[in-house]
Amino acid sequence: MVLNIEGEMDGTHIESDGFNLHFQAHKQLHRRKVIIDTDPGIDDMMAIFMAFQSQDIEVIGLTTVFGNVDTPMSTINALHLCEVAGFPTVPVAEGSLVTLKGTLPRIADFVHGADGLGNTFQAKPKGFKSESNASDFLIQKVAEFPNEVTVVALGPLTNIAEAIQKDPTFANNLAQLVVLGGSFFATGNVNPPAEANIYCDPEAADIVFTSGANTVVIGLNLTTQVIFTAGDLQEIRDSKGRNGAYLYDCCQFYKAWHIKSDNLDGIFLHDPTCMAALLDPSLFTYKTGALRVETKGICVGHTLLDMGLKNWVGENPWIGQPPVKVGWTVDVEGVKALVKSLLCRP
Amino acid sequence: MVLNIEGEMDGTHIESDGFNLHFQAHKQLHRRKVIIDTDPGIDDMMAIFMAFQSQDIEVIGLTTVFGNVDTPMSTINALHLCEVAGFPTVPVAEGSLVTLKGTLPRIADFVHGADGLGNTFQAKPKGFKSESNASDFLIQKVAEFPNEVTVVALGPLTNIAEAIQKDPTFANNLAQLVVLGGSFFATGNVNPPAEANIYCDPEAADIVFTSGANTVVIGLNLTTQVIFTAGDLQEIRDSKGRNGAYLYDCCQFYKAWHIKSDNLDGIFLHDPTCMAALLDPSLFTYKTGALRVETKGICVGHTLLDMGLKNWVGENPWIGQPPVKVGWTVDVEGVKALVKSLLCRP
Repeated sequence: MVLNIEGEMDGTHIESDGFNLHFQAHKQLHRRKVIIDTDPGIDDMMAIFMAFQSQDIEVIGLTTVFGNVDTPMSTINALHLCEVAGFPTVPVAEGSLVTLKGTLPRIADFVHGADGLGNTFQAKPKGFKSESNASDFLIQKVAEFPNEVTVVALGPLTNIAEAIQKDPTFANNLAQLVVLGGSFFATGNVNPPAEANIYCDPEAADIVFTSGANTVVIGLNLTTQVIFTAGDLQEIRDSKGRNGAYLYDCCQFYKAWHIKSDNLDGIFLHDPTCMAALLDPSLFTYKTGALRVETKGICVGHTLLDMGLKNWVGENPWIGQPPVKVGWTVDVEGVKALVKSLLCRP
Repeated sequence: MVLNIEGEMDGTHIESDGFNLHFQAHKQLHRRKVIIDTDPGIDDMMAIFMAFQSQDIEVIGLTTVFGNVDTPMSTINALHLCEVAGFPTVPVAEGSLVTLKGTLPRIADFVHGADGLGNTFQAKPKGFKSESNASDFLIQKVAEFPNEVTVVALGPLTNIAEAIQKDPTFANNLAQLVVLGGSFFATGNVNPPAEANIYCDPEAADIVFTSGANTVVIGLNLTTQVIFTAGDLQEIRDSKGRNGAYLYDCCQFYKAWHIKSDNLDGIFLHDPTCMAALLDPSLFTYKTGALRVETKGICVGHTLLDMGLKNWVGENPWIGQPPVKVGWTVDVEGVKALVKSLLCRP
């Protein structure tokens, strides 16, 4: 039975027996509703294409944030990517222009290019952003479908924190929050203690991780293990994937950055690995515990998980916080195969 | 050759051939001069006994600091332990009563007992502390024997930082500094981000790690792997070790603490593992890089090593700092064997 289900999940065949046709119809009706909070961004683009190509989820909206580019550019790119992916009517709600405490964002254009898409300078989208801003859109959708909406957060957590602050029911009514962020018992990528998404709005991240939302966090400790080589990118370009050539072209700038930054002849699949954790959680193992973010000092943006190994003496800021699931190990080949199967799909 | 040297290091036999006799005499003349900065403390006691039992080093003094007990109690215990070990004339210089910034110390009497020696309430020592305080004693000895003195620091780094601040030549003229402190890409033991020695004086630790001294740091990530079971302690008690029964008795309180704190039926060999890194560095592998300590926020006391995996964009507090060696892996059985061989020696 499991094999049949998985056969259908990748959408390549539908068996002719009645049960499977019934199951397929059931799945289409009960696909998980997903909102992607994103700052596209080249690896965001890959994750967004994965989501649209998956028949397991229904993308009910994108919300945008600063990070790889500024928020207005994220919005333009999000609209553009929905159109490229063939989903031009999916709403895109623009998020905060600044961090939760109102400071100007740090922009990683040196990683993703001035346009966020590897300096490929794509045509402007035809569509327009939603009238709602990101946090209001998130609140509306979660209120409309309580316990049915999963948010996958691929950028700084400003919009999610804003939604939590505006609506006390938001965190509890989320089905799941899957976050790309942090680095657990490993070094960062902005500086030794901090990963970029968390560093860009540490106050927001600490609010989100202590909110009680059903949260899974995928950090650099895992995503830097999942690498596409030049050969993997070529394979996607040469496939029948609907966006293979587009994706290949956008990745070249990002690939050149990895050589400079990490002496790596390949690219880290940060956001795609996070999307894989949403689509197939069994590709990962997890540790569960209280998770806090440093907001002061030289370790600002550092994520620190209490795995519950010790019975503490006295108080500390981790005690009494709700548990968060943090990715601990990853089936690297399994994630790569999932990413490829979706990106190579016509 | 190596085998012969190691045969002699444990002092159990001296070969009759001329070379080895010559070598042995050479080693006696050229034993490394070591000062132990310590807050005894039960695992400190074990490390101090190891040092006195080793024929590879010459303990030229102890300096005391707060931590497991307050500084005056550390001084009393240090004098007492020198006498128990049979070295009553080794000078003991008392260190700072407070942290580098003048705050009252945190005392871990719940780990080591009110007397620091597992509530065994030993007789008062006959000897007296030196007239010099700890930092002056450290400065004097390093000035007297430049590039010959190794300091092994088993407590908070207050005295070492004070010596560095008082004498600009101190750090450079140390042969080596071996530190028990921090937790590298692993959780702490005071709270999730911090290990006790660093937490007790984070400003001092940051000064020491950025001083340019030839430094090796052994953290919880290694020391929590090196465990004596009840059977190991029994083996030492039943051996011909000169302090076997004494050591066994002192360890019982410490052992009870590990059950409460870590659900561990055994004791972590923190300080003995650090002493092993001094006596036989080949039992460890190391990572080298800039090491900083957080002094603010919820991660105060957190140690963060930049292993040089990435070429950073822009400035950060790690760039340009001198390299420090941090223990990365440990030969657990090798360290346990070394500790036992020294503590079981008559």
